[in-house]
Amino acid sequence: MIIEHAGKRPAVHLTSSVAVDATICGDVTIGPNTRVLYGARIIGENGGQITIGSNCIVMENAVIRGTPRHTCTIGNFCLIGPNAHVAGAVLEDEVFVATSAAIFHGARLGQGAEVRPHATVHLRTCLPAGVIVPIGWVAVGDPVHILPPERHEEIWEVQKPLNFPDWVYGVPRDTPHWMQQVTRSLSESLAVLVSDRIVREDCETRR
Amino acid sequence: MIIEHAGKRPAVHLTSSVAVDATICGDVTIGPNTRVLYGARIIGENGGQITIGSNCIVMENAVIRGTPRHTCTIGNFCLIGPNAHVAGAVLEDEVFVATSAAIFHGARLGQGAEVRPHATVHLRTCLPAGVIVPIGWVAVGDPVHILPPERHEEIWEVQKPLNFPDWVYGVPRDTPHWMQQVTRSLSESLAVLVSDRIVREDCETRR
Amino acid sequence: MIIEHAGKRPAVHLTSSVAVDATICGDVTIGPNTRVLYGARIIGENGGQITIGSNCIVMENAVIRGTPRHTCTIGNFCLIGPNAHVAGAVLEDEVFVATSAAIFHGARLGQGAEVRPHATVHLRTCLPAGVIVPIGWVAVGDPVHILPPERHEEIWEVQKPLNFPDWVYGVPRDTPHWMQQVTRSLSESLAVLVSDRIVREDCETRR
Repeated sequence: MIIEHAGKRPAVHLTSSVAVDATICGDVTIGPNTRVLYGARIIGENGGQITIGSNCIVMENAVIRGTPRHTCTIGNFCLIGPNAHVAGAVLEDEVFVATSAAIFHGARLGQGAEVRPHATVHLRTCLPAGVIVPIGWVAVGDPVHILPPERHEEIWEVQKPLNFPDWVYGVPRDTPHWMQQVTRSLSESLAVLVSDRIVREDCETRR
Repeated sequence: MIIEHAGKRPAVHLTSSVAVDATICGDVTIGPNTRVLYGARIIGENGGQITIGSNCIVMENAVIRGTPRHTCTIGNFCLIGPNAHVAGAVLEDEVFVATSAAIFHGARLGQGAEVRPHATVHLRTCLPAGVIVPIGWVAVGDPVHILPPERHEEIWEVQKPLNFPDWVYGVPRDTPHWMQQVTRSLSESLAVLVSDRIVREDCETRR
Repeated sequence: MIIEHAGKRPAVHLTSSVAVDATICGDVTIGPNTRVLYGARIIGENGGQITIGSNCIVMENAVIRGTPRHTCTIGNFCLIGPNAHVAGAVLEDEVFVATSAAIFHGARLGQGAEVRPHATVHLRTCLPAGVIVPIGWVAVGDPVHILPPERHEEIWEVQKPLNFPDWVYGVPRDTPHWMQQVTRSLSESLAVLVSDRIVREDCETRR
């Protein structure tokens, strides 16, 4: 379904198509010949922008999110795998995000980058063109470190100064009870949910 | 949508909101100012109870489950990330469950615990307040062991006596053809699905 | 919902049931006493076949896919966990696919195999009866290698000649701009989406 959210309505190119049980919501622009498969969620949260190019495939139950702080831009010929998550990142052309991979806010993935199943590309990480993140590994930082999960100490050394709570939610990690600040502010901004309006129910979107 | 299931109907506080394509089903109680985002599933299976506090954010395509054997309780100011899974566990206040993390039956997560992307908190595990489970790691046992996946032997040494099939489904692992017992009994108890009734379709829930 | 797709209509046994927000789409056959839970997607893509046996449990937001190149067959007494992904594989009886696990095209899982949370069974992999893939590990090849993620070099040595892009999409990996070929050909074949037709909306399926 196509949902108007926070006063913004998705624009899907007439040659693209959206499965009947997928959701496109808010300030989302989708180019030609892109396919959004069953159960995928493409959510421009509270005015957050998402742009997806041509010939992209967004697979079953994938989640793509843009927020007011972090626009999400996906180029042409990209594939976002089943159960994958892309939030507030920039993907150049021909990027492959495999099953259950996760890409975070402010990441930039160069042309032809490949993020394998269960891998993570963390916030503000720059993945150069053509680089592969192996199954279950973590890419973090700029310049990027690509490490297996057991090398947590090294991952955290790079990740900590990137300051996830501050970058993503505007609440520095050393704020007392930072989770209270984060969730309160999300709760307030997401109150806009009540004004959501279904624009179209059907699978084909022509405009 | 809000679904009456096994004769139980969700109660969502009038200040909370539920995305139009999310599902709240069965014996679920949600407190004030909580937001349930697109595609999330909060399922009180066959009479199983779920209680969620105030100012929680349940993100896209997250799954929260309660069963007759294992109630699920989530405190205030918690965030359940996209594609995450929480089943039959207790989360105190200010718990952060990141993207694609999995929390299992009988786990207890102390205040401010943080479960990072792709991490697992296994059944009957006690995670003390403020403790972090790194990306892709496994927390298991009480007292807890927090280990990277390649240390499978140590994980299994702690996990095996916790007896997942017995604890979760009431079928000891050494039962011949235990999967036949588990799936038959789930199939029988879930026959109740046919009596599901949509109570509300829309995104705002006022009662 | 039950969707006719590419001219094919799912056949669900009258004793089975499908949650009202789950999707069964295309050439899918489901045997007796199987339960498809909330948000699950069972998608026979563009004529691709899926057969699921009796007493199976497909849990919340799980994705099962069959494609024209890769039929998916699931035996009896199998459990497909929440957020799991099974594409174009053969699962014999009593297979347990845990939360967020991923099974790829052409894999064959023997009776009673157990794929733990966040684990991967890669394409064309043969997992013998009763074998366990530990949390977050990768099973690859035939004969199978079961390795933790940090042993990427060994995984890739086995995986590379299995040639994912060629096997799954018919485009050899050394094709220049292979992602352009893959996404263009998927975009064309998935144009069929526009002819999808909802056959039933409700949770109970009797035929």
